[in-house]
Amino acid sequence: MARPTPLSGFPEWRPEGRIVEQHILSRLERIFELHGFAGIETRAVEPLDQLLRKGETSKEVYVLSRLQEEAGEGAEQKSSDKQLGLHFDLTVPFARYVLENAGHLAFPFKRHQIQKVWRGERPQDGRFREFIQADIDVVGAGSLPYHYEVELPLVMAEALGSLQDIGVPAVRILVNNRKVAEGFYRGLGLEDVDGVLRSIDKLDKIGAQKVAQLLALELGATDVQAQACLDLAAINGADSTVVQRAQALADEHQIASEVFDEGLRELGALIEAAHERAPGVVVADLKIARGLDYYTGSVYETVLVGHEQLGSICSGGRYDTLASDGTNTYPGVGLSIGVSRLVSRLLSADLVRATRSVPSAVVVAVAHEDLRPQSDAIAVALRARGIPVEVVPTAAKFGKQIKFADRRGVPFVWFPASAAVTRADGSVQEAQPDQVKDIRSGEQVTADAALWAPPEADLWPRVEAVTAN
Amino acid sequence: MARPTPLSGFPEWRPEGRIVEQHILSRLERIFELHGFAGIETRAVEPLDQLLRKGETSKEVYVLSRLQEEAGEGAEQKSSDKQLGLHFDLTVPFARYVLENAGHLAFPFKRHQIQKVWRGERPQDGRFREFIQADIDVVGAGSLPYHYEVELPLVMAEALGSLQDIGVPAVRILVNNRKVAEGFYRGLGLEDVDGVLRSIDKLDKIGAQKVAQLLALELGATDVQAQACLDLAAINGADSTVVQRAQALADEHQIASEVFDEGLRELGALIEAAHERAPGVVVADLKIARGLDYYTGSVYETVLVGHEQLGSICSGGRYDTLASDGTNTYPGVGLSIGVSRLVSRLLSADLVRATRSVPSAVVVAVAHEDLRPQSDAIAVALRARGIPVEVVPTAAKFGKQIKFADRRGVPFVWFPASAAVTRADGSVQEAQPDQVKDIRSGEQVTADAALWAPPEADLWPRVEAVTAN
Repeated sequence: MARPTPLSGFPEWRPEGRIVEQHILSRLERIFELHGFAGIETRAVEPLDQLLRKGETSKEVYVLSRLQEEAGEGAEQKSSDKQLGLHFDLTVPFARYVLENAGHLAFPFKRHQIQKVWRGERPQDGRFREFIQADIDVVGAGSLPYHYEVELPLVMAEALGSLQDIGVPAVRILVNNRKVAEGFYRGLGLEDVDGVLRSIDKLDKIGAQKVAQLLALELGATDVQAQACLDLAAINGADSTVVQRAQALADEHQIASEVFDEGLRELGALIEAAHERAPGVVVADLKIARGLDYYTGSVYETVLVGHEQLGSICSGGRYDTLASDGTNTYPGVGLSIGVSRLVSRLLSADLVRATRSVPSAVVVAVAHEDLRPQSDAIAVALRARGIPVEVVPTAAKFGKQIKFADRRGVPFVWFPASAAVTRADGSVQEAQPDQVKDIRSGEQVTADAALWAPPEADLWPRVEAVTAN
Repeated sequence: MARPTPLSGFPEWRPEGRIVEQHILSRLERIFELHGFAGIETRAVEPLDQLLRKGETSKEVYVLSRLQEEAGEGAEQKSSDKQLGLHFDLTVPFARYVLENAGHLAFPFKRHQIQKVWRGERPQDGRFREFIQADIDVVGAGSLPYHYEVELPLVMAEALGSLQDIGVPAVRILVNNRKVAEGFYRGLGLEDVDGVLRSIDKLDKIGAQKVAQLLALELGATDVQAQACLDLAAINGADSTVVQRAQALADEHQIASEVFDEGLRELGALIEAAHERAPGVVVADLKIARGLDYYTGSVYETVLVGHEQLGSICSGGRYDTLASDGTNTYPGVGLSIGVSRLVSRLLSADLVRATRSVPSAVVVAVAHEDLRPQSDAIAVALRARGIPVEVVPTAAKFGKQIKFADRRGVPFVWFPASAAVTRADGSVQEAQPDQVKDIRSGEQVTADAALWAPPEADLWPRVEAVTAN
């Protein structure tokens, strides 16, 4: 086997990188659970027909086949509806999970879900083909109160904000409401709402002029209609003047739409509540469209302040018809963090690091292989009190054993007690008690494995911001 | 979308089941990390040619294709060596990870890895096609001291033993050493060691007589040779008499084999050390063969005491040539727990349960939707002190709000303070301070969100053994 090379689009971290990722995942999970979101996992696969319900993502699906099938056995299965693909997000599997377990869940059901997803994008795009998403959603049975559209982005703001002490930049959550756009476009006389949204979604990429051309060309919009759409998309801000400006624009175009009014009322309530509970974090931005057509109310995107070019790292919205079994519908609202993209940025830009590459706080030295049981016993005593410990692999010279700890960033080396030894030349090496050395400072003290503990800050690897010094 | 049905072989748990699984994974991870194993994750996919290196598992591999490819774009890719499959275990990906990152890892490298794996087995077998494995391995660069073959099963014994307080049965780790078998068979004159092992592996399924027939038929063994193999396989026990019995059998057949001697010495050392560090847990069983042909020294299987028919829930062994880049080899030893099989058994046999289905310890009531901000503020204050809380979805009657908590098993309901109210009939409802009710006992006390906390045992959902009462 030649030395393998990484697969493009399938990120993997070295142990110290994984410590950073695991730390971030634990933080997110803790905030989600403090808010009452129950953790679930769904299988990695869904029936292909379910994955292809949303046309836009279909080209990204990885389809599975059993190697055996090629030998003939499963030919009939291949063409059947049982064909499986890897999920490309956690929303579609969650909707299916809710329907499948509806009789056993208590609604509104709040869940978090942290799993890998797969997208067979063209590798030359430099995009991830496998990455971790961390989602929260709440779904109701039949109905879902609006206040969850306020609560969920604030939970995400708190979760992402909790990472600032390890060097993750502050976040800004951009919000819009589909009803505002829908009511406004229809009021203008543009009935293809999804078409307008798709054009507006390209604003950042192609600019206002080209979007106006698209609106005219593809949707037959007049100059006035196109300009009105662009004017609406240009409205943004963190306070209630956003609502006033949107209302003024609607009045100017004599738009009378209950849907618009309802959307603007909801958006205003969201901005107001967010301003009180997390000042400065949530900003209305009426050009936010979100590609997915299943959103029906609030939509969210999230940028890292100062790293806006990275794009949205946490997106979502309100949906009303994603999960429906014909009899009942389960409207929901949720957001999803693209964790791998975030971690990749933190590691590649050297913003965050782990203080060591192994869990061990202590390495126990071994003076001679015959004495290994003595070192093992010390390790057992320390672990019994919750201290992560390993014993050196070989009874090499102590200098080499210290290097073993140093290479891994382990702060302490433990030297087991030794009996007095009379050397060949008649000189005597005195008996030594157990000692522990902080290899950073060089300080070495007598210690008892039943009592000694490292400082709390050294007990487990820490994750910290890389400072500029 | 009609109500979906579960996919056979792809287990999913309801929220309360996932709490059990997550608890078990956290326990295992903690023990692994106390022993200094660093956590890594590898991508879910490997190049197909790597997955097919071990012939035995090849028929189980799930092969991936991008849906786009069917439209022609990727035809050339499909036949190339870049074809990808889902990993079927964590050992093959780990070996690849070690080679790929060898220049950046510190050896011996101890890692744990907890991930899903996929096996496209025939669905009618009732086997899992997706399941979680929890692995520990240590690999050296060039060489690896034998003492790790003693250490690793003991770490697993400790990890699995830590689950006994939630009702997981005690474990027994059965050990053997490939060198004992290899030296013995060759000493007997049977050169096809893998062939003999494959036959011996069927002992539990088909019995001694049929194994003897197989040995005669397939390997041309004489009656004496076949009987000697069966006699060796029949040796088991937890003390040093195992070594004496195996030696006596070898003497009887005049076997002179350095490999046999070395294997028996290693097995004896393992039994002795295990007997000291975890009495009664590790038992030599000379019929343990392990299907995988890459094992070269110790091999392990683990059964739940009293549930032996479930088969091995944790297996592994020593391997010398799994990871090699031509220049360097990275010998290792590791074991793998089949977590999903274990969790599935615990849940389906109703042995273990979570005390509630949500993280929340407290549900905050809402007297009127206009007063929701007051309830939100109480929730914020409690969360700030690490207490998981949710606010009721709607300001229904308090009885219904209590039912909301009760259905989820949440122990406490918080009633926000209310001002005095003069009713229409002139009677006065007095002002009430904040109060919290333990809905299990009905006890209700005045409380301050800045000070009150639930008992430690109620803070997070607990996982506990289901008792027979």
